[in-house]
Amino acid sequence: MHFASDNTGPAHPAVMEALVAANEGYAMPYGSDPLSQQVVEQVREAFEAPEAVVLLAATGTAANVLLLSTLAEPYETIFCSTCAHIHEDECNAPEMFSGGTKLTLVPHEAGKISPADLEAVIANEGTRGVHGPKRGPVSLTQATEKGAVYTLEEVAALTGVARRFGLATHMDGARFANAVTHLGCTPAEASWKAGVDALSFGGTKNGLLGVEAMVLFDPAKGEELEYRRKRGAQLFSKHRYLAAQMSAYLTNDLWLETANTANAAAAALARGIEAAGGRLLAPQESNLIFADLPRAAHQRLKAAGAEYHIYVGELDGDDPDEMLTARLVCDWSAREADIARFCEIAAG
Amino acid sequence: MHFASDNTGPAHPAVMEALVAANEGYAMPYGSDPLSQQVVEQVREAFEAPEAVVLLAATGTAANVLLLSTLAEPYETIFCSTCAHIHEDECNAPEMFSGGTKLTLVPHEAGKISPADLEAVIANEGTRGVHGPKRGPVSLTQATEKGAVYTLEEVAALTGVARRFGLATHMDGARFANAVTHLGCTPAEASWKAGVDALSFGGTKNGLLGVEAMVLFDPAKGEELEYRRKRGAQLFSKHRYLAAQMSAYLTNDLWLETANTANAAAAALARGIEAAGGRLLAPQESNLIFADLPRAAHQRLKAAGAEYHIYVGELDGDDPDEMLTARLVCDWSAREADIARFCEIAAG
Amino acid sequence: MHFASDNTGPAHPAVMEALVAANEGYAMPYGSDPLSQQVVEQVREAFEAPEAVVLLAATGTAANVLLLSTLAEPYETIFCSTCAHIHEDECNAPEMFSGGTKLTLVPHEAGKISPADLEAVIANEGTRGVHGPKRGPVSLTQATEKGAVYTLEEVAALTGVARRFGLATHMDGARFANAVTHLGCTPAEASWKAGVDALSFGGTKNGLLGVEAMVLFDPAKGEELEYRRKRGAQLFSKHRYLAAQMSAYLTNDLWLETANTANAAAAALARGIEAAGGRLLAPQESNLIFADLPRAAHQRLKAAGAEYHIYVGELDGDDPDEMLTARLVCDWSAREADIARFCEIAAG
Amino acid sequence: MHFASDNTGPAHPAVMEALVAANEGYAMPYGSDPLSQQVVEQVREAFEAPEAVVLLAATGTAANVLLLSTLAEPYETIFCSTCAHIHEDECNAPEMFSGGTKLTLVPHEAGKISPADLEAVIANEGTRGVHGPKRGPVSLTQATEKGAVYTLEEVAALTGVARRFGLATHMDGARFANAVTHLGCTPAEASWKAGVDALSFGGTKNGLLGVEAMVLFDPAKGEELEYRRKRGAQLFSKHRYLAAQMSAYLTNDLWLETANTANAAAAALARGIEAAGGRLLAPQESNLIFADLPRAAHQRLKAAGAEYHIYVGELDGDDPDEMLTARLVCDWSAREADIARFCEIAAG
Repeated sequence: MHFASDNTGPAHPAVMEALVAANEGYAMPYGSDPLSQQVVEQVREAFEAPEAVVLLAATGTAANVLLLSTLAEPYETIFCSTCAHIHEDECNAPEMFSGGTKLTLVPHEAGKISPADLEAVIANEGTRGVHGPKRGPVSLTQATEKGAVYTLEEVAALTGVARRFGLATHMDGARFANAVTHLGCTPAEASWKAGVDALSFGGTKNGLLGVEAMVLFDPAKGEELEYRRKRGAQLFSKHRYLAAQMSAYLTNDLWLETANTANAAAAALARGIEAAGGRLLAPQESNLIFADLPRAAHQRLKAAGAEYHIYVGELDGDDPDEMLTARLVCDWSAREADIARFCEIAAG
Repeated sequence: MHFASDNTGPAHPAVMEALVAANEGYAMPYGSDPLSQQVVEQVREAFEAPEAVVLLAATGTAANVLLLSTLAEPYETIFCSTCAHIHEDECNAPEMFSGGTKLTLVPHEAGKISPADLEAVIANEGTRGVHGPKRGPVSLTQATEKGAVYTLEEVAALTGVARRFGLATHMDGARFANAVTHLGCTPAEASWKAGVDALSFGGTKNGLLGVEAMVLFDPAKGEELEYRRKRGAQLFSKHRYLAAQMSAYLTNDLWLETANTANAAAAALARGIEAAGGRLLAPQESNLIFADLPRAAHQRLKAAGAEYHIYVGELDGDDPDEMLTARLVCDWSAREADIARFCEIAAG
Repeated sequence: MHFASDNTGPAHPAVMEALVAANEGYAMPYGSDPLSQQVVEQVREAFEAPEAVVLLAATGTAANVLLLSTLAEPYETIFCSTCAHIHEDECNAPEMFSGGTKLTLVPHEAGKISPADLEAVIANEGTRGVHGPKRGPVSLTQATEKGAVYTLEEVAALTGVARRFGLATHMDGARFANAVTHLGCTPAEASWKAGVDALSFGGTKNGLLGVEAMVLFDPAKGEELEYRRKRGAQLFSKHRYLAAQMSAYLTNDLWLETANTANAAAAALARGIEAAGGRLLAPQESNLIFADLPRAAHQRLKAAGAEYHIYVGELDGDDPDEMLTARLVCDWSAREADIARFCEIAAG
Repeated sequence: MHFASDNTGPAHPAVMEALVAANEGYAMPYGSDPLSQQVVEQVREAFEAPEAVVLLAATGTAANVLLLSTLAEPYETIFCSTCAHIHEDECNAPEMFSGGTKLTLVPHEAGKISPADLEAVIANEGTRGVHGPKRGPVSLTQATEKGAVYTLEEVAALTGVARRFGLATHMDGARFANAVTHLGCTPAEASWKAGVDALSFGGTKNGLLGVEAMVLFDPAKGEELEYRRKRGAQLFSKHRYLAAQMSAYLTNDLWLETANTANAAAAALARGIEAAGGRLLAPQESNLIFADLPRAAHQRLKAAGAEYHIYVGELDGDDPDEMLTARLVCDWSAREADIARFCEIAAG
């Protein structure tokens, strides 16, 4: 019963096979091998963006901060939600890679920020001249850190706010696949057609060993991103091993299949939890859910070896009925039996 | 009627005389002249801190960020209030000089943060391991950006919280003189005796042309601060002109005299505003007040040429009775006649 | 005939098998899985350094700059050779990760710097007080970028110079395995016993897909390195895939076996080149050689599809006898038949 | 006998008078006062550059690094001479303010770099793709750190090299006045008409207390420079005191008068030294000379209290005839009697 994260499961077998297959013979380094060239075309095709600059990196943090530092000047501020991964979970990497930008936080609900809040926060950052930072890019997370998925209209409204202030929009798409699957739209619709300028296209949480694609839909800053990737220690000499993963990911829409599986598993888990008397904090829309369960249920689950985070509350406590919040994540490898068992134990 | 800032008035005549007097003959550069050495001793004596490292800088931002970057590692976060000058008014200088630290914000009332809030915010920053930044120094502003002055007990309580987490405390003392005057304590009591490790001892807002002293009460990081000052472009070749200002400032407690004058002017202004039907947002404790006055009063004042900021609200508007918030600042040069006239016009 | 680099060959089959084997079931992320813990012990054991801090990164640049930024303050300078990878081939990554240190260059012969030169350069950097940077760590490359290998006495002499100035020594060991093999010593003798404080222990050029171990022999700065790794976007969520590679690398001394094979291949190549009338620029000591061959030989080799860099000179030119310098690199996968054919074609 | 530096003399009386005069009444802060606006126009007029962006800073290092960080991306390298102030005497400030650029050094003669050397070094930096830094701006010093002055043709040739590579040129003009005086040209001819894009226009070494003007001849990056100045802690609240100095400096060409006086003093010193049997290392062209004198002469001079640096050699030593190199600097305040006495003592 492994629901602690979408980075605890194995890589998808097709990805591992591609990696093994790539391990034949010689390949020129640093992305100049044929497979690395091919994967750029695969990403462009998937996004209907023949001009896009596509570069690989090995961690989600790397993809985020390399893109953001390409979009932001060091005397600017980046707008993001108070629960954004770039704020909460990247240990000042955005500040470091950008040379010292600030992050200006926008309130959120279930991880989603509203156009009105974004507009108000951006407006407020423009009242102090050079005493405050200049306004820089907006960063949205899709699917959000709380599992919610922005609708296409919501994304367009937010990028519209950014655009009215002359600002670019970055999307942290560590779970972009889960969002696209949920929305039933095309990758292009979920990104540049909705006004996104730069996308961290996640692979690691969705079946790869560790690869993300950085996609700049406007190629003007492509050269800068290349220099920044090298300077950021993310240009891999044996680049084929990154390319092989990403290529397998895009082949036959594997990425959508794995995301679909993960979302479906989370949906089953959500239904089971509700059936067991638990309460979802928000509608299940991706592979990540937050749910309240009574302490007693948590204690039974933990005793049975279930792996997940108690997000709010303490396992130890007197009141067996007190509700504690669980953070539960599924990836492509989630097992139906585990889900069934988890829900059964939760039900008591 | 100049109440826009404490940096719009002239330098004190005694300071200017000292500057002129220093302009005689030759002096070795970079702080190795006798006057520069003397001023170090004057600061140490004023603070009863014979071991303290004392270095001059020319702007308040420089003093703050050089000290903070000496206290903080780039992978740490600095704790400060949401209205701290280092957050609101230094255009990412703290982030730049420190190499990318984050600023974690603590709520405030009249610019003052509470020990409970500080403790809660610090505690919360320690829950994510290396995913979040490590906890770094606390920065307090005394007097605060809203004009309030921490009591010595309050300062000690806040530095005590920091200390319990193993964190150092920096004090942004751009208006330290105004606070000391208000508190009626010694400089030592207001700083290291209350647990402050590093002080930006302000001069510019209180009668100098542009000099601040950086004071490290624990000399261990003195060499680091010297390198950082030079690297930060704040080591002046003709250092005697900074030293002359700071020396005059400390001679015969000029700094306390000018601060006292400024505080008294603000007190007179506060009384007059209340007499005129205005409302102070907080008790007057330093040289800076925030007060609500009706729009009509503002319109009369602005028409009469009064210089000050309308902090909340718009001068133009239909309702003459709507309350708009003024931010009013006095320095040593505030004129009684101006204050009287201001209050008279405000009264209508 | 692939001699362009030691990053163009495939990963060793044992490494790939380990990677496949690691792809089973669930594993806690970010290095808290059993395999990741085990590999730390394997490195410590290999280096007879039970207290050492061992952290993995995915690129050689990352390992170098994370370690150097842990050893150096931003107002310091790092001493390295004019041909050091950190200076020539990391696109300002050392400057970025360290927050702006300078690199002070030391002349070299075949990539090796002499204790006398190092001492003179360090001494010269200490004459300008705070106007110049403070003196920071020394970085040595072993084996060097020119293929030469420092003897243990040479390493000890260089680290001794550093130590006399109170400076730490970093070793860029991208080809550490090749050096150890050549020296016939233990890893400990080649590192901490010779005075090295921090080692980038390379794997990528020697049979891995992309993993390096950062080794801090003095654990005092271990926590700092952990924060810096995360901040530097090098903390992998699916950490087991890095651990699996490094674990296989150390198992049964695979790393020494692959290095030995690579060195032997380079030796065969060197002998063949000399037999063909070429001239080695320095004795062959590792897997990397520089050799002069006549233009005509280069033209024949390139026409036959040989992959390698012409380091000095232009392939096109009138004089068939003019000597052009080749840079030739072998890894564990170098094929005897290729070497033989290369030498045969070179001989004409 | 004060020849240690051009920062040990007093500020010019006219400058001090202007400072005193500026200390009247109220002035809006941060450069929005009338005097600050006026000084911008004075600089523009002096340089025949009505569109130029002109911002003040308080130290030469600040002017240099703020301009360079505006011209250079952090993944680029700046080209300068091996004796450039930005390399030797600014303690990594260029690296810090620019976010980690490298400085690529060009050999020099008497401080001057040749177009051929510059071209060769720039060309060499473009051979490693993203592995090396991208090529960034060229920084020239005029007059050089060794006292020589580039001719206008030499400047044009160097900026021409930069331009052919698409690179901008910065001029460190800490002694720009001394160069213009020597050249007998207009400020425009010595700067933008010769291809200079950005100028650090020095005042501190030539009679001011501490002010430099940053001049961007192409205003496109003006807003960026303003943000960078604030972020760099160089935006002075009581800006009138910087403006007053610079305004006096430009009024009635005081800056050329003081520079002319300083150059003439250096010329007299040079003649006297040669008459005394000393040897100039390069023709005297500015206010800074390097000259060889026998140890015995140095010992007599030092015994008589002469202040200057022995640049090469040790005062103590057996051989009274050994030549030691003196570095001697004059500013506007140099006294004829001191020069005569120095030369007399030198002659023995």
